Amino acid sequence: MASLLRLPSLLKPAAAARPSALLSRRSRGGLHAGMEARVSASRSQAAAATTGAAAPAPPETRGGGDREGQVTPRSVDFNAWYTDVIAAAELADYGPVRGTMVIRPYGYAIWEAIQDYLNVKFKETGHSNMYFPQFIPYSFIEKEASHVEGFSPELALVTIGGGKELEEKLVVRPTSETIVNHMFTKWIQSYRDLPLMINQWANVTRWEMRTKPFIRTLEFLWQEGHTAHATLEEAEKEAMQMIDVYTKFAYEQAAIPVIPGRKSRVETFAGANRTYTIEAMMGDRKALQAGTSHNLGQNFSRAFGTQFMDENGQIEHVWQTSWAISTRFVGGIIMTHGDDAGLMLPPNIAPIQVVIVPIWKKGDEKSAVMEAVASVQNTLKEAGIRVKVDDSELRTPGWKFNFYEMKGVPIRLEIGPRDVTNRSVVISRRDVPGKQGKEFGVSMDPSILVDHIKGRLEEIQASLLQKAIAFRDSNIVDVSSYGELKEAIAEGKWARGPWSASDADELKVKEETSATIRCFPFEQPEGAKKCFMTGNPAEEVAIFAKSY
Amino acid sequence: MASLLRLPSLLKPAAAARPSALLSRRSRGGLHAGMEARVSASRSQAAAATTGAAAPAPPETRGGGDREGQVTPRSVDFNAWYTDVIAAAELADYGPVRGTMVIRPYGYAIWEAIQDYLNVKFKETGHSNMYFPQFIPYSFIEKEASHVEGFSPELALVTIGGGKELEEKLVVRPTSETIVNHMFTKWIQSYRDLPLMINQWANVTRWEMRTKPFIRTLEFLWQEGHTAHATLEEAEKEAMQMIDVYTKFAYEQAAIPVIPGRKSRVETFAGANRTYTIEAMMGDRKALQAGTSHNLGQNFSRAFGTQFMDENGQIEHVWQTSWAISTRFVGGIIMTHGDDAGLMLPPNIAPIQVVIVPIWKKGDEKSAVMEAVASVQNTLKEAGIRVKVDDSELRTPGWKFNFYEMKGVPIRLEIGPRDVTNRSVVISRRDVPGKQGKEFGVSMDPSILVDHIKGRLEEIQASLLQKAIAFRDSNIVDVSSYGELKEAIAEGKWARGPWSASDADELKVKEETSATIRCFPFEQPEGAKKCFMTGNPAEEVAIFAKSY
Repeated sequence: MASLLRLPSLLKPAAAARPSALLSRRSRGGLHAGMEARVSASRSQAAAATTGAAAPAPPETRGGGDREGQVTPRSVDFNAWYTDVIAAAELADYGPVRGTMVIRPYGYAIWEAIQDYLNVKFKETGHSNMYFPQFIPYSFIEKEASHVEGFSPELALVTIGGGKELEEKLVVRPTSETIVNHMFTKWIQSYRDLPLMINQWANVTRWEMRTKPFIRTLEFLWQEGHTAHATLEEAEKEAMQMIDVYTKFAYEQAAIPVIPGRKSRVETFAGANRTYTIEAMMGDRKALQAGTSHNLGQNFSRAFGTQFMDENGQIEHVWQTSWAISTRFVGGIIMTHGDDAGLMLPPNIAPIQVVIVPIWKKGDEKSAVMEAVASVQNTLKEAGIRVKVDDSELRTPGWKFNFYEMKGVPIRLEIGPRDVTNRSVVISRRDVPGKQGKEFGVSMDPSILVDHIKGRLEEIQASLLQKAIAFRDSNIVDVSSYGELKEAIAEGKWARGPWSASDADELKVKEETSATIRCFPFEQPEGAKKCFMTGNPAEEVAIFAKSY
Repeated sequence: MASLLRLPSLLKPAAAARPSALLSRRSRGGLHAGMEARVSASRSQAAAATTGAAAPAPPETRGGGDREGQVTPRSVDFNAWYTDVIAAAELADYGPVRGTMVIRPYGYAIWEAIQDYLNVKFKETGHSNMYFPQFIPYSFIEKEASHVEGFSPELALVTIGGGKELEEKLVVRPTSETIVNHMFTKWIQSYRDLPLMINQWANVTRWEMRTKPFIRTLEFLWQEGHTAHATLEEAEKEAMQMIDVYTKFAYEQAAIPVIPGRKSRVETFAGANRTYTIEAMMGDRKALQAGTSHNLGQNFSRAFGTQFMDENGQIEHVWQTSWAISTRFVGGIIMTHGDDAGLMLPPNIAPIQVVIVPIWKKGDEKSAVMEAVASVQNTLKEAGIRVKVDDSELRTPGWKFNFYEMKGVPIRLEIGPRDVTNRSVVISRRDVPGKQGKEFGVSMDPSILVDHIKGRLEEIQASLLQKAIAFRDSNIVDVSSYGELKEAIAEGKWARGPWSASDADELKVKEETSATIRCFPFEQPEGAKKCFMTGNPAEEVAIFAKSY
């Protein structure tokens, strides 16, 4: 939790209050040379040797390095590593208000990649985007009993508008079920108005006490889907469909092998009958709830009088769902794939899939190198590959190698004078360190290069997923007693075992081990089971873990 | 202003307080038959006659019509027409809090079309998207003198968070210059960090007293660009570049012939040195400020200490710009192109460019018609045309004709049994009423149909712009005396005349005529000019008009 303490205190502009390494992109002394030496001197040397070109000396010393100090090694302090990577890869910065976050362009581009994929899926599955106001009358929040209980401690309230005290306090939305139902009640009359299936991309506010960039911030960005149906079965099908969309997204795009399942009663969303979740194992083996889908039953429709006339002329309350994924997912990507060299992005959601670093020494080499670089860039761009050239002369190639490794760019291409002569490039994979991840003499010929790069991107995507699956599976322990669970949790692992005990028992486990039920996974072992806590018959296994 | 009074009062859930015609999409009695008869009986009759198919009787009477009552004719009451169209075309609804708006899927899809276009242009011109927190410490707003003066009456303030009174009130962002500068100060050290060019898509809050859907709402959606530069010249060039992007967007996408120009000192943004604007003439000839770009000079950089070291080692304050377009633009589209039949959308930003209405009478006709419809739909979709089929059997073709006219869909295709036999379709243009807008016997052959439709869409796009230009130009009067200005304004027109008088004179004109200087247009007449108010030499003409 050390990293949490680095957050500025409430409302104090933060610069003075926190260590500069995490926070200022530009610092006075450039320490990147040290970093280079540490992380991948061998690679830059290899590059220089094989391309026959030393890095050009920077024309002048830059006023400030982009990163000060080193990124804390992951194994030394996972939380410090996490916040260091966020700063060094320029993903986010702290806002001036305690617990708020500025999402910087590179971090936002990852969010945009998430949006681009999900937005298409939501539309394909019949949902329309729309937008609800973020100010909700306080009385709305009070209408659904468990909802108000769950959210009232976390509310931000507007009490003054246009210079005047308001008659009724306004809640800055923590989620939109209440205002959505207020509107659905106006729009829905008949079964013919159903299903009503919408989504919004929005900011939400929850007054969290312990915050962590991306994972838990006072304000965050998300999408929230809201649907109304004529029957419980349809609502259940929808809730399951959306957790399935999230699961596919996590596996296929983010290369995160989440475990989909159902939340326990204790962990169910405030106002839902059932909550489905995707649970991801982070690099420190803590669980991250990465997306949820709720079957709300008729809880909100009863509270807000959202009714329809069914085919037989009967007035009924609608059955509803809601589901969300947020900028928290970006934190999940960092903590699943990153290593000591920084971020490691799955190609499918990487804002930059390939970075090209030109390498030349003498002025007369430059034009030929830059011409080849431009040609390769065009070739890749036309093939639909997200490519960036870093031709800055203020930085050495070695500095760039480290910088784009820190940013998690899946593939680096180096092109130097010897490569130009040979009509070839040098390729480095972000996910395979050292010489093993390098290929020399790959032809620049578009007909060869494009297929080669595409193939490598696919390999990296698959490899990241496989690595994450192996890590996950080697850190889940099947337990058949509470003792075994305690042992597994104490080792930092996840415990999976049959469970049919009480909510009180579940809370006891939490108190004694800090682990909670992450989910009853959809994938269940066959055969008779006995609850590891009570010895009673159990229908399902549950997964317990410490979590963010 | 009648329509404004229909907004629900603060914090009262609104259903009871307002006339149902504007607000409830589903009403108890379906009055659409009356609407059909009024608006385009001739068209549906023509359709029936030429396709040889009467509309199928709806299998049962629908529980509620989608629209109750008629849309007020534009000529009778422009404001009532506007709010009626918003309700009937399902663009937006009122939120529960006074002055807030729910943007419904069809209205949001228009906003998405605006976003899709501008987002690409912003990136092409070197800007990156990112996200700043919406909560701004109150003290930030006070740092720039004219900024606080301009915005403090409109602020929404969060005073309670997590159940506790906050030490410092938080402003819900009305615009982000202050928090942007707070962060820029941390990120910018050297001239090498410049230019810094970013954009965010976000919601903003301004506690407006008089609200109107899309045009002026308590919360609205927008993009706000923020840039920092090393020189005044660069900032000026950027501010001009962005107003140019907006101008092109307005002309080429929205078919709105805006007049770009510079705001007077009186009308300049609170905190800017110069404000550039695009001014649009609405159907009632009032002006709408549809987008602005500000040269902020060093006002915010001085207030926030945003400095950099220049190439000579001197410390300087950065030069800045900001620029924005909001959901207000959707209101501008409605009020520029709409007519008594409803919305009229330029094809380039229409969520649906072509709607296909199948027409059949007997059950045995249905399968052949639906097969042809599906084939035409695929053909158009593959050609990149945004096409929708409305095959609902709950509505008559006549009802659908009116509904999609109300929604402003540029082209309607009718396909009936006779069309199937002839392998042809009937085409109706939204912008040309009656028989003149209809084409019969257009071949279904993809090689003919696609080009034909694309050609028609281009014609409609061009025609809407030409019509709007003609309307605009016939309603701008060149004036050479204050008397002439008063006359023009009294007639509801815009007045254009040489102006070099004082801010006090400008305020006098506003007080006496309700007209303000909309802009000093970039396009200026040649030759010597005399101020129409003072008789002194004037360098420029200004445009005066009443505005939203």
